[in-house]
Amino acid sequence: MSGILLAHGSGGKLTHELISETILPTPGNPILSKLTDSAILPFEGGSIAFTTDSYVVKPIFFPGGDIGKLAVCGTVNDLSVCGAVPRYISCSLIIEEGFEMADLERVLRSMAEAAEEAGVEVVTGDTKVVERGGADGIFINTAGVGFVPEGVKLGLERIEPGDLILINGPIGEHGIAILSVREGMELEVGIESDCAPLNGLIKTLLDELGEAVKFMRDPTRGGVATTLKEMSEGTGLGVEVDETAIPVSEPVRAACEILGLDPLYVANEGKVIAVVDPKRADEAVELMRRHPLGREASIIGSFTEDHPGRVYLRTEIGSKRIIEMLVGEQLPRIC
Amino acid sequence: MSGILLAHGSGGKLTHELISETILPTPGNPILSKLTDSAILPFEGGSIAFTTDSYVVKPIFFPGGDIGKLAVCGTVNDLSVCGAVPRYISCSLIIEEGFEMADLERVLRSMAEAAEEAGVEVVTGDTKVVERGGADGIFINTAGVGFVPEGVKLGLERIEPGDLILINGPIGEHGIAILSVREGMELEVGIESDCAPLNGLIKTLLDELGEAVKFMRDPTRGGVATTLKEMSEGTGLGVEVDETAIPVSEPVRAACEILGLDPLYVANEGKVIAVVDPKRADEAVELMRRHPLGREASIIGSFTEDHPGRVYLRTEIGSKRIIEMLVGEQLPRIC
Repeated sequence: MSGILLAHGSGGKLTHELISETILPTPGNPILSKLTDSAILPFEGGSIAFTTDSYVVKPIFFPGGDIGKLAVCGTVNDLSVCGAVPRYISCSLIIEEGFEMADLERVLRSMAEAAEEAGVEVVTGDTKVVERGGADGIFINTAGVGFVPEGVKLGLERIEPGDLILINGPIGEHGIAILSVREGMELEVGIESDCAPLNGLIKTLLDELGEAVKFMRDPTRGGVATTLKEMSEGTGLGVEVDETAIPVSEPVRAACEILGLDPLYVANEGKVIAVVDPKRADEAVELMRRHPLGREASIIGSFTEDHPGRVYLRTEIGSKRIIEMLVGEQLPRIC
Repeated sequence: MSGILLAHGSGGKLTHELISETILPTPGNPILSKLTDSAILPFEGGSIAFTTDSYVVKPIFFPGGDIGKLAVCGTVNDLSVCGAVPRYISCSLIIEEGFEMADLERVLRSMAEAAEEAGVEVVTGDTKVVERGGADGIFINTAGVGFVPEGVKLGLERIEPGDLILINGPIGEHGIAILSVREGMELEVGIESDCAPLNGLIKTLLDELGEAVKFMRDPTRGGVATTLKEMSEGTGLGVEVDETAIPVSEPVRAACEILGLDPLYVANEGKVIAVVDPKRADEAVELMRRHPLGREASIIGSFTEDHPGRVYLRTEIGSKRIIEMLVGEQLPRIC
């Protein structure tokens, strides 16, 4: 059978076959395969972190990843930036009738690979099918559960003037990778999404630097600019960032120029912005750079008592620019 | 502004406005309003139950409920039937561009009311917007976290021959309510969905009967028939049910006859099938009947060593019929 039928979402015989033959064998673990209404998880100490995201990215396959990898990495990263060790995720599929079974299998394999890389287990799930035209191919929701170890405390309220702002590498790659496919220029542009699970890199930072790490967020939709503005508004402090310090690869810079985009607003899926005590910031950069996902880590700015709630960018030519949140929709269905 | 714009899903300014002005004020609690990437939850003891479901019901408003109420009750019930006390849920929205803001507000209010009734908090969420035609109105995913108290142990492996099968009331109301709207005959049919949070009723059963309750499942998609077949296959035991003992209201029976449906296969959203030690089964029925959601509770069948993996229905006229899982799709987008 090559296409998804409405009956695959009936809850009856075909749903059972789809689950047992296509969905279960892919991620495969003892908790999921019980097929109870909820997964029952052992508590591992600390507090529980809980998050969710729906993924509607278009196209579903893109350079550097696909909707399945994205759905795992995005939820792993949302747990990780809160200081949690990600452990369990759910997978809920909304599939359009007629969607290719081979594509579903490819997406599920990709989820399983990303889950293995991140060390998380898919323990519960759901499958709905809507009629042709009722959805666009496939949408995936993942929710995640992790545990925040005792002693880990991250929060905007911990940020003080003088704290430094770090990023683990070059920005804008996910958004440009998606857009290059939509514009039919992925070969010329040659940019892969940075989509990756950040829990390993973040664990190293927290293990080594402890309380010196004050806050983290992953700059996805809305890009680095929107995350900086959120942090500035959330702390009531000013933020100053240095344009020349923000890593942007040459191909991304070139593509942004052609497309009329500002890389500061383009989505990332494998980047974390970390706020670190200035005394430990160089050490943090070193730790990041030793990790495969942080080779181009750098300090991009700092918090200040000046201009509360505002983000100033020092541009390459030395002038200052005020950074606001993304207004309007730059790239719909980027994640 | 009366319609959802693509920019409401951008992650930027309009997303922030939608969240702070429309989404946050509705459910409203201190954990959600922190807007961190994950919610941080205190552990309450026992094991952690974790579940997810996406809701694609059409129409989104129907007699007895709407997609918002359904999304809360469905996830609350999936946690409850596993013996968990539901505590936290997530809410992830996929909205079609142009969807009416007033409808979104109505759905969110309905989620908040259902959450309050069930005693759960919406602690984390996500909002995506897809272009016109990319989805059908609104899809809602909820995931849920609850805690299974020490000592509560439910599982198919606990079921023995002779155990009795109970249901808390009449079947088929949700499916017929949805279908009556689709067919433009909701006024003639006059049936409301049974959509309701079952955690209160289930807690009473578990508190009073303890280990005498062996297993529970909510017969949603695929109906009571599919759930019975799942239990029979899962235990390797036979199931015998008595058609005359299964509560079906007169209006549902009449509507099923007109529509050519078997109520055993029609979806429920406020029903639980409980497997109980025969020595405590009458007590279980009494407990259910004292609860507003269990007034018509009854014993509908039992497990037997005969015909392993098969479900036999004794019909009204005394003959026996084999019950299989739902084959094909009876009612797409029922939940």
